[in-house]
Amino acid sequence: MDENTATNKKDIKDKAIKGYKSAGKQSIVFKNPPYIIAEASLVGQKEGEGPLGALFDQVIEDPMIGKNTWEEAESELMKLTAQRVLMKAGLKNREIRYLIGGDLLGQLIATSFGIAELQIPLFGVYGACSTMGEAMTIGAILVEGGYADKVLSITSSHFAGAEKQFRFPLDYGNQRPYSASWTVTGSGALIISDQNEKKVAGEKEIVITGVTSGKIVDYGIKDSMNMGAAMAPAAFETIKQNFEDFNIQPNYYDRIITGDLGYVGKNILIELLKEKDYDITDRYMDCGIEIFDKETQDTHAGGSGCGCSAVTFTAYVIKQLKEGVWKRVLFVPTGALLSQVSFNEGNTVPGIAHAVMVEAR
Amino acid sequence: MDENTATNKKDIKDKAIKGYKSAGKQSIVFKNPPYIIAEASLVGQKEGEGPLGALFDQVIEDPMIGKNTWEEAESELMKLTAQRVLMKAGLKNREIRYLIGGDLLGQLIATSFGIAELQIPLFGVYGACSTMGEAMTIGAILVEGGYADKVLSITSSHFAGAEKQFRFPLDYGNQRPYSASWTVTGSGALIISDQNEKKVAGEKEIVITGVTSGKIVDYGIKDSMNMGAAMAPAAFETIKQNFEDFNIQPNYYDRIITGDLGYVGKNILIELLKEKDYDITDRYMDCGIEIFDKETQDTHAGGSGCGCSAVTFTAYVIKQLKEGVWKRVLFVPTGALLSQVSFNEGNTVPGIAHAVMVEAR
Repeated sequence: MDENTATNKKDIKDKAIKGYKSAGKQSIVFKNPPYIIAEASLVGQKEGEGPLGALFDQVIEDPMIGKNTWEEAESELMKLTAQRVLMKAGLKNREIRYLIGGDLLGQLIATSFGIAELQIPLFGVYGACSTMGEAMTIGAILVEGGYADKVLSITSSHFAGAEKQFRFPLDYGNQRPYSASWTVTGSGALIISDQNEKKVAGEKEIVITGVTSGKIVDYGIKDSMNMGAAMAPAAFETIKQNFEDFNIQPNYYDRIITGDLGYVGKNILIELLKEKDYDITDRYMDCGIEIFDKETQDTHAGGSGCGCSAVTFTAYVIKQLKEGVWKRVLFVPTGALLSQVSFNEGNTVPGIAHAVMVEAR
Repeated sequence: MDENTATNKKDIKDKAIKGYKSAGKQSIVFKNPPYIIAEASLVGQKEGEGPLGALFDQVIEDPMIGKNTWEEAESELMKLTAQRVLMKAGLKNREIRYLIGGDLLGQLIATSFGIAELQIPLFGVYGACSTMGEAMTIGAILVEGGYADKVLSITSSHFAGAEKQFRFPLDYGNQRPYSASWTVTGSGALIISDQNEKKVAGEKEIVITGVTSGKIVDYGIKDSMNMGAAMAPAAFETIKQNFEDFNIQPNYYDRIITGDLGYVGKNILIELLKEKDYDITDRYMDCGIEIFDKETQDTHAGGSGCGCSAVTFTAYVIKQLKEGVWKRVLFVPTGALLSQVSFNEGNTVPGIAHAVMVEAR
């Protein structure tokens, strides 16, 4: 990537737009990269017992989070996470211009009921487990475009609510194939800002430098218990497009981080990219693989859900960036665009992936 | 509204943002208002038989639209509408930088399966029946911010799919209270552009001059058969905020147009605004009231659904603007943020409303 060119916003934007018309480009470079000034992650007990357990802001042992239904529990989780990120940033809710949020439940009820009392103008977004990528993309655009000084991007998922929504109520005690993933109970939130008023001495600043937004990719997978395979082609298309649009190689990034491809999807993604002469093996990670211990936690293909990439990014990835362990990452939340209805009616599971370029400076 | 000030984007934006911090402002003014360069509307038979029937681009008599399920029918409807708007604009799908779309079905499957083959980067959005307002807002921001030259904003709904999703399958033949609305079978699409290359002589140009984006408003209504009452307070809050943020009176607009408050919600909205000394009676209209004939079509409180405001706006409102009948309108799609699950679990029906300021020049 030509750094001189990258700082010329109009030039790059024009190029990207013009390039798009002729070559399918789909990326944006931010001339004034917005800052991620605060992040928060709240998770359930199982996530707390996983390899990243010590990094989350809070582990909530009660899966009902003091509520009467799984859906209300997830709303409460999202509310607590939004409040936590505001507290960490030292901001009041009225200082946030927009909240961009979403979840896996039909009609986004975890979000609607979760953030209602915050009274922040809301853009509800949905991209299945890629939702955090979409929420960060729209948030960064709102801030860099001058439409907002501060936005809050947030997503959540809840294991029990997702099982009830997409598969079987837990009480059925059904068995799960090894290709199935385990929906993360968790909510991750970020505040994106045009200024970093509270820079901490000795700690890197985190900025969003660009995005590559995904198209729907459908390779015809029909198995809702194998979402990694359904999403891997979407991750492949978005990551490849990012490399092409910016004329970079995988080593431009210290880590390329997918949302929840799990063990099955991971291998497919690596193979698909190898066919295009991109080898990401030595710098690839997947939030779904990181969040649980494969040997001891019985989570099969790994974690998934809107909350999976959101909490892994906010708790773990940002920490690595702040501490200077990594300088640049490509964060690529991945979504399987199925519903219980589409699955029961025999439809495929289309995938989508939204890539966000994040840098420590 | 001070027109001189309104043309100073930075000034207004700063004011709006600063104002927000102290006074809850939530509006944006576009210095370079993006153009609506094409619009399309496809509807079902019942909508075709209504008062606006002659204005739609196409009336499709087969409610299955040649497909096997209601969900696939809605996807097909959305696909045909997207193709129609591209055709009317003389554009290829690869010339569209982003598609911003949503629908009422769980996990937005009408959208995912409808627009997959167009291969346009997708931002899935959800705001129940306010979704067209959100899709137009994000579309206008992407274009005016220089992040896209052309975007496609689209929503859909389908009567049978929505009844199955939210209430009862049609086969049950259940009765509907008079406060219930009738979900519109229809899809409306717009192309928003930074240039109007195909200006037609003698026809006004249509631009989006600003937006007021909604917060969630919950007055505690619990009746999913009375969504007008649930949404009216949200419409009230957004419209009042628009008047306050721009320091204007209702007569700034030739029409103030809500999405689908219906006959019940209409009266509530008018009364709520009157209490704040705003009388919109002589310039108010509601898409849900316009689209069906109350006397002959047995639709009770009126039409509703993401498609209701989308097709009424694209077929009727834009025509009035192009022909110079109206100069300025405030388009306020309204959403009831319930799901079958939240309703069955005894939750309230929170509302949201996103206002878009549209002008003929």
